[in-house]
Amino acid sequence: MANTNTNTNTLYQYSTISALLSGICTEGIDAATLLDKGTYGIGTCSDLDGEITVMNSRAYHFPSTATATVRRLSPTDTIPFAMLTTFQPTNTVPLPTTTTSEKVTLKTLSELLTPILDTNKNTFLSLRLTTTFAWLTTRIIPRRRSPEETLADCASRQKVTNHGRSRGTLFGFWSPAYTVGIGVPGFHLHFLSEDGENGGHVLDFEVAVEHDEDSEGEGEGRGLEVAVLREVRVELPDTEEFGRVDVEAPTAEMVRGAEGGQPLSFCIHMYGVVILDLIVMGGNWEQKGKNKNYLASIKSVRETTFYFQNAFFT
Amino acid sequence: MANTNTNTNTLYQYSTISALLSGICTEGIDAATLLDKGTYGIGTCSDLDGEITVMNSRAYHFPSTATATVRRLSPTDTIPFAMLTTFQPTNTVPLPTTTTSEKVTLKTLSELLTPILDTNKNTFLSLRLTTTFAWLTTRIIPRRRSPEETLADCASRQKVTNHGRSRGTLFGFWSPAYTVGIGVPGFHLHFLSEDGENGGHVLDFEVAVEHDEDSEGEGEGRGLEVAVLREVRVELPDTEEFGRVDVEAPTAEMVRGAEGGQPLSFCIHMYGVVILDLIVMGGNWEQKGKNKNYLASIKSVRETTFYFQNAFFT
Repeated sequence: MANTNTNTNTLYQYSTISALLSGICTEGIDAATLLDKGTYGIGTCSDLDGEITVMNSRAYHFPSTATATVRRLSPTDTIPFAMLTTFQPTNTVPLPTTTTSEKVTLKTLSELLTPILDTNKNTFLSLRLTTTFAWLTTRIIPRRRSPEETLADCASRQKVTNHGRSRGTLFGFWSPAYTVGIGVPGFHLHFLSEDGENGGHVLDFEVAVEHDEDSEGEGEGRGLEVAVLREVRVELPDTEEFGRVDVEAPTAEMVRGAEGGQPLSFCIHMYGVVILDLIVMGGNWEQKGKNKNYLASIKSVRETTFYFQNAFFT
Repeated sequence: MANTNTNTNTLYQYSTISALLSGICTEGIDAATLLDKGTYGIGTCSDLDGEITVMNSRAYHFPSTATATVRRLSPTDTIPFAMLTTFQPTNTVPLPTTTTSEKVTLKTLSELLTPILDTNKNTFLSLRLTTTFAWLTTRIIPRRRSPEETLADCASRQKVTNHGRSRGTLFGFWSPAYTVGIGVPGFHLHFLSEDGENGGHVLDFEVAVEHDEDSEGEGEGRGLEVAVLREVRVELPDTEEFGRVDVEAPTAEMVRGAEGGQPLSFCIHMYGVVILDLIVMGGNWEQKGKNKNYLASIKSVRETTFYFQNAFFT
């Protein structure tokens, strides 16, 4: 499939995260059309079945069923959400190599990007990092069981894989805070192992300190490769469900809850806020309870933390 | 200036409303480049100086100074925010003509659009209405006095014009709720009088019931002309201020406060909420006061309602 997106380092996005959060994820465009839009990207399949990673125009699909392994995306697969770009890195940020340096993890990645983010506070970044990871945690979102399930619902039963030492590539985007209704503010990265057998949505990672002593690979030793994206083309689905279902403006917490995947500290914080609110608001609870976003936020928090509940409350 | 946007009924947007709300409005693109992006649109000039209305590839600028009148946009004018489309209406909604029908105002416009909005809940609409108005209220945003002033600041001292019976054209967009960080959810319409001498950002209007008995004009008698926009191209400014200033995710209330212009009922509602919060939250106020968005929201509400305060509280 030829890539006809001649606009290097622009962002093509199909649908929005707020649509996924509202359960709009069955219909979409076919993979053949999508792969025309860029060389690198991330996405999911119809009914949130798994994770898609596009690297160098090759599209890998990690389905969510227990026995399924990685497959190449079929041209007729239906894609309800994706972000693609014709990636041409313009900046390379070297990785620290000594054991005395701070470790490079998902949390410290923004510090590494400080020189770029300080003068590009409100643009999108595309990011590629090929290296050896000391460890890496990914998730694969499970296909929803019914049309009533949302992304947040599915995230509560996502399949989390703790990879040990691994070589491979991270690719994804950093999005500004004001894009919360459209995409995922902050980092949204997918992983593909060097052998192409493992991957998924990145929850966290740590770059091995001796990373640049490893054998060569795409982007290897060149550090974190970055491009600034100033042009964003959003294609809104021409589908029945997108036209019919009410999509509300989500809060950053709602998106993080569904896309962050394993946000233990966030969940404790949010539970704290909700509980605090319940106590402090007292008689005002009824009024607050009528706020649809607030209710959805609680629902999202409750369900993404489902499997932490026993550890946390008992 | 030739329009090279061959993609009819796509939306081209330069910068974002959240950037304007954050005071990013001095730099931008030149008008010649902008007018290449569509035939109809809305926008503002550098430092929020007035309102721009683009109709049929002619760009009118209503400056904010007391003595200035309408002028044609100069190719070298700097535009910090604009939305344009190559408008080709695909739907026409007839206007009610008898006195027994509900009046067509900004408030009832969404009811008139129900057949379209019911199956296009999450796409953008472009709208054109050429008719006779029983009355019409527009505002012109004043040029900011210092780089510290934001859109919300300027909105508090906007110049409001109450037009009497007027013939002319409304053009603008309806945007879905989830686009709050990017644009103005709901309607964002600008007006141009038939003689091209008056116009601005529309605060409210009422269509004259005998509208279709008037003389002919562009779109006259054909009702409200609409197109559904599924493709959105956002160009983020490649400017120093856009790279440097933190843009936060605004709430719908913040955008409404700045763009709604004269939201008396909204202000009373918001004041109610703020006051209620102050009373009910009690000891929790300190915690809530630390929430930057909440503070900004109160600031925005306070300042956009500045000139209602005497009438409302005294």
